[in-house]
Amino acid sequence: MFSKETYIQRRQILKQKVGSGLLLFMGNEDTGMNYRDNVYPFRQESTFLYYFGLDIASLHAVIDIDNDQEIVFGNELTIDDIVWTGPKEALVDKAAKVGVSKVQPLNAIDSFLKGILSKQQTIHYLPPYRGEHYLQLQEWLEIAPSEAGQKASVGLIKAIVSMRSYKSGEEIAEIEKAVNTSVDMHLEFMRTTRPGMTEKGLAGKLQSIAISQGGDISYPVIMTVNGEILHTHARDLAMQDGQMSLCDAGAETAMRYCGDLTRTIPTGKKFTTLQREMYEIVLHAQTSAIEACKPGILFKDVHTLAATKLLEGLKSLGVVKGDPAEAVANDVHTLFFQCGLGHMMGLDVHDMENLGEQYVGYTDDLKKGTTFGWKSLRLGRALEPGFVVTIEPGLYLIPTLIDRWKAENKRSEFVDYNKLEMLRDFTGIRIEDDIVITEDGNRVLGKHLPKEVDEVEAMR
Amino acid sequence: MFSKETYIQRRQILKQKVGSGLLLFMGNEDTGMNYRDNVYPFRQESTFLYYFGLDIASLHAVIDIDNDQEIVFGNELTIDDIVWTGPKEALVDKAAKVGVSKVQPLNAIDSFLKGILSKQQTIHYLPPYRGEHYLQLQEWLEIAPSEAGQKASVGLIKAIVSMRSYKSGEEIAEIEKAVNTSVDMHLEFMRTTRPGMTEKGLAGKLQSIAISQGGDISYPVIMTVNGEILHTHARDLAMQDGQMSLCDAGAETAMRYCGDLTRTIPTGKKFTTLQREMYEIVLHAQTSAIEACKPGILFKDVHTLAATKLLEGLKSLGVVKGDPAEAVANDVHTLFFQCGLGHMMGLDVHDMENLGEQYVGYTDDLKKGTTFGWKSLRLGRALEPGFVVTIEPGLYLIPTLIDRWKAENKRSEFVDYNKLEMLRDFTGIRIEDDIVITEDGNRVLGKHLPKEVDEVEAMR
Repeated sequence: MFSKETYIQRRQILKQKVGSGLLLFMGNEDTGMNYRDNVYPFRQESTFLYYFGLDIASLHAVIDIDNDQEIVFGNELTIDDIVWTGPKEALVDKAAKVGVSKVQPLNAIDSFLKGILSKQQTIHYLPPYRGEHYLQLQEWLEIAPSEAGQKASVGLIKAIVSMRSYKSGEEIAEIEKAVNTSVDMHLEFMRTTRPGMTEKGLAGKLQSIAISQGGDISYPVIMTVNGEILHTHARDLAMQDGQMSLCDAGAETAMRYCGDLTRTIPTGKKFTTLQREMYEIVLHAQTSAIEACKPGILFKDVHTLAATKLLEGLKSLGVVKGDPAEAVANDVHTLFFQCGLGHMMGLDVHDMENLGEQYVGYTDDLKKGTTFGWKSLRLGRALEPGFVVTIEPGLYLIPTLIDRWKAENKRSEFVDYNKLEMLRDFTGIRIEDDIVITEDGNRVLGKHLPKEVDEVEAMR
Repeated sequence: MFSKETYIQRRQILKQKVGSGLLLFMGNEDTGMNYRDNVYPFRQESTFLYYFGLDIASLHAVIDIDNDQEIVFGNELTIDDIVWTGPKEALVDKAAKVGVSKVQPLNAIDSFLKGILSKQQTIHYLPPYRGEHYLQLQEWLEIAPSEAGQKASVGLIKAIVSMRSYKSGEEIAEIEKAVNTSVDMHLEFMRTTRPGMTEKGLAGKLQSIAISQGGDISYPVIMTVNGEILHTHARDLAMQDGQMSLCDAGAETAMRYCGDLTRTIPTGKKFTTLQREMYEIVLHAQTSAIEACKPGILFKDVHTLAATKLLEGLKSLGVVKGDPAEAVANDVHTLFFQCGLGHMMGLDVHDMENLGEQYVGYTDDLKKGTTFGWKSLRLGRALEPGFVVTIEPGLYLIPTLIDRWKAENKRSEFVDYNKLEMLRDFTGIRIEDDIVITEDGNRVLGKHLPKEVDEVEAMR
């Protein structure tokens, strides 16, 4: 955890930003997998961690701005607990380390909040995403589950986004630690993948690297020879020579900061000619996008730049026709690049996603798109120093989508559907790095992870 | 999954056992770790799997005994979903493979159940253990979260326990597969643990073995040099020569059947003399308990036997005095062996634990104990052929507990508190195997996993 002063200062700034009312921070609970006591690895709520730093299940906290008090609600271990769990530092001592002097038992929060309600003080809370959050809001604040999302505090959301978006030096150091572990995972992937292995076997090996470095994976490992399937899980099938293997994997440090990297490699020794050509297109789009990232530029425009580079490349293969920029203006890129160029990253791999992508990635004046492709771009707003973002363009040949466009002869002035047939079973490529925006540009985070074709093949 | 006939027959038998009413089976949902879309590995509800075999999130099912119909509620993928997830077998085809011909969209379940309620038909459901279950019971059946547990159907629970307790041949084969993977995990642990490694690093490595064999771990790996802490998590501290390492880890197969094994080894090459003596005591208790397991014997009595063997051993060290059997009758063993000898195992590592330990491990005439030690014995009833149970005695030297007993001079006629001081920092030992009860005795499941001192040390 960071120093006491860090947490005290964060809460102080938040109080000033919100101004009045009571701020409720619901921590996460342990979740039973197949029964109550067989629990998933505990993951604390990220905003709770940001302001209170306590990585323990079944804690909640309030910042009562009107009455100038901060309280952590949670139970101390009983002597019976200690028989089973071993001696542990008292909650009151842990809370003191993040500058909170008032700790009350968990069951005190209900009557405390009911008291606040009865005084008609405003209670600000964040959008729920776990079943337990909905139950707690219902019990404590008498908010029906169906209304819990929309009654979340926009004022609190905006204040938090205005803080968590700007990573401090100590946060960037922690993120870089996560990225370095993620690099280790990818080096293992790039060095050891062989035809005949299974996606699952590799995925498990990478997770063990994340665990061995003190944390865990920051999201389920995507390890696949079908890179075009964006939401996929590793499978038991043997990977084959001639295929490419796409690995999208990142580590989370013990402090819960994230890394998020993707590499695509030949499953065998070398890319095929076509794979190499396509890979170079994605790589050029990725490095061009990284070069463009600096304070002031709209990330939406960097996305457009990357999309244009991808279509330029596909034009050189004869699959795309006409002016690439005009083709992007007509959303032709969404046939090949259906998702966003990147997203904020921090305590969450999609940082603050539970607060709402409109608030995190856009502004009051810049609304998130709603059309295919654009609705998947999580970040559109102007970049600022301290933002940490991913840059992850890709080319994804999705047979279902190709068939749909072809049947409609959609945008046929820009797409040569006959030539496209040669790419129908190509699968997909993505290359992803994590960058921090600096005063005059950006810096790629972490140790070097090969991405040039020659250096990738040299590792195989 | 098993054959269609297996699931049809299971549901047929269940219908006959319960007799009337509607049986509701809530499947599990994906759970967001730190936001909705960053999900934990999905784990289906075990009873849902047992009767419906569909290992997919956001499904529910009913068996309407009165109207003789079975329905699975769940959504088919849209063409937009397929762009992101790739083509998948339709739910209606998957349901057909488990003998269910009627599939309705997820949002139809609410009005369907409201219709059943309005006809005053009895709706049987199982005790909830996830937040979402409570929310669903509230929405569909108008049952308040505070009452959802107690309103669960005892009739349905007992009928299910009377089926899931007896493992079929195909289930035992699948459990044995899980045990074999668990053996592989332990062989890796026993061969590769070295002073200087971290508990976490080892735990991650074992998980990767479980994942590579097509499933995952069946519960969080316990990997510790402090075996006396029963609820512990692996840590970042380096393990040291002279310590023992306890590993309690098991795999779950792709079909979600579990293994659960424990071994305790010297972290260095050899046990110390005291460690070896204590280890032999636990091993003798464990093999004696396994020998005793056969149809008809109360598992409670096997627990007592193991406890007696442990105290006999401690008597030989001079730590315990008097008659060991009398000492056990006075609960003296609970100073050293605070938990139960074992539990049922199947689709859950503590099989059916969410249905209630009284129903699973005891009978109407045999109630679960409520005193320290006995309240942690999950299984007490008479063993029967087809039961799969764990046998896992241990000796746990818990300083907090020793101090408490010593301060009270508790059972001092049986405990030499001066001699006990030499064991105060001994830590703990557990040895665990999984057995199936046969017609005339039992069989230890899985490949051989060394547990004799000599064979353990030979692997180090």
